[in-house]
Amino acid sequence: MAYPGFGAYGGYSGQIPGMQMTMGQPMPGAVANMPHGAYSGYSAYSGTYSAAADPMWPYFAAIAGQDGEVDAGELQRCLTQSGISGTYSPFSLETCRIMIALMDRDNTGKMGFNEFKELWAALYAWKQNFMMIDQDRSGTVERHELSQVIAAMGYRLSPQTLTAIVKRYSKNGRIFFDDYVACCVKLRALTDFFRRRDSMQQGYVNFLYDDFLHCIMAI
Amino acid sequence: MAYPGFGAYGGYSGQIPGMQMTMGQPMPGAVANMPHGAYSGYSAYSGTYSAAADPMWPYFAAIAGQDGEVDAGELQRCLTQSGISGTYSPFSLETCRIMIALMDRDNTGKMGFNEFKELWAALYAWKQNFMMIDQDRSGTVERHELSQVIAAMGYRLSPQTLTAIVKRYSKNGRIFFDDYVACCVKLRALTDFFRRRDSMQQGYVNFLYDDFLHCIMAI
Repeated sequence: MAYPGFGAYGGYSGQIPGMQMTMGQPMPGAVANMPHGAYSGYSAYSGTYSAAADPMWPYFAAIAGQDGEVDAGELQRCLTQSGISGTYSPFSLETCRIMIALMDRDNTGKMGFNEFKELWAALYAWKQNFMMIDQDRSGTVERHELSQVIAAMGYRLSPQTLTAIVKRYSKNGRIFFDDYVACCVKLRALTDFFRRRDSMQQGYVNFLYDDFLHCIMAI
Repeated sequence: MAYPGFGAYGGYSGQIPGMQMTMGQPMPGAVANMPHGAYSGYSAYSGTYSAAADPMWPYFAAIAGQDGEVDAGELQRCLTQSGISGTYSPFSLETCRIMIALMDRDNTGKMGFNEFKELWAALYAWKQNFMMIDQDRSGTVERHELSQVIAAMGYRLSPQTLTAIVKRYSKNGRIFFDDYVACCVKLRALTDFFRRRDSMQQGYVNFLYDDFLHCIMAI
């Protein structure tokens, strides 16, 4: 265990907390019918996969336009129109910006179709987690519930860190769906970033100031 | 020079880029009459200073209420009513949240009067910088102008980091005032955070995963 006590990815095996698949996704509109945890058994598309044949493609392409990518504003429209937020408020532009930063591996500031599908899968899983604890469908959860869901996603954080997170993402003691997702995206992005630099999985990383700013300012 | 090439605080002498004072502030309404750079010569309040006698106090206290502190929502109202944004759009709640995180040294998730005044001073300086480059008062600046202003604040960043920052904070190639301020707050908060852990000013810091998340998730 490389991260005793606090290692969110101590037992990392290629899967990321809160994101159990890298390809394949529920189709828009199918979300409500899928049980929690259904992703684990999803298989990736086969080698014959073609974007044009994907049921999500026309839907994505209509917003992406000719360049085949979406920026944060377009992603916001895409997600709002998809209805993935369900009865919860649509995602804010700010949250969509950090979603782009999370997935933007080629540093274009935009998101291609495959990245969009990866994001969709993660959003679906995060939404299921949120709905599990928001049983009265109020659209908000409480502080201790956010802590529980973060722990359930596999993050092993100190109580101080959990408190700081809850403080940052709550409004009047309640955490709204959009803020919860922003929190999940950021946790995931920072963990990815840290892990990439911790090649020996020692639980600590030596950062140069510029590298530190480069990655974190982008999120 | 501890940070050759990229050190925003290589020559650090107790003053922070974009924040040349720690006490004293322009009164609301006086902003437009003060020249750029006027802060440098400001002296701190003397030992006889009393919050109740401060011209900003009644104004802050009306929003802070009995606990004498403001949360992000209250700060947003405070800043909107103060008119510090001038003809620019008022600050978003998201930007106010990172302002709270920047100043919240006692980890209450709120901001006291002295912290509010420090913030005010920084906002005034950042606004002056923005107005310097937004000469047509369009409310937005261009990418290369943001880079210039970041450099002028004393940050020495690599071109890659500047590009990442500009990408994150621009909309359709333009940077709005609110996003510019969010960028300034975050740069300042991350630099403070990094510096506190770089006691030898070596330009690199060894972060444990939990400590890394603790500080960055709060911003």
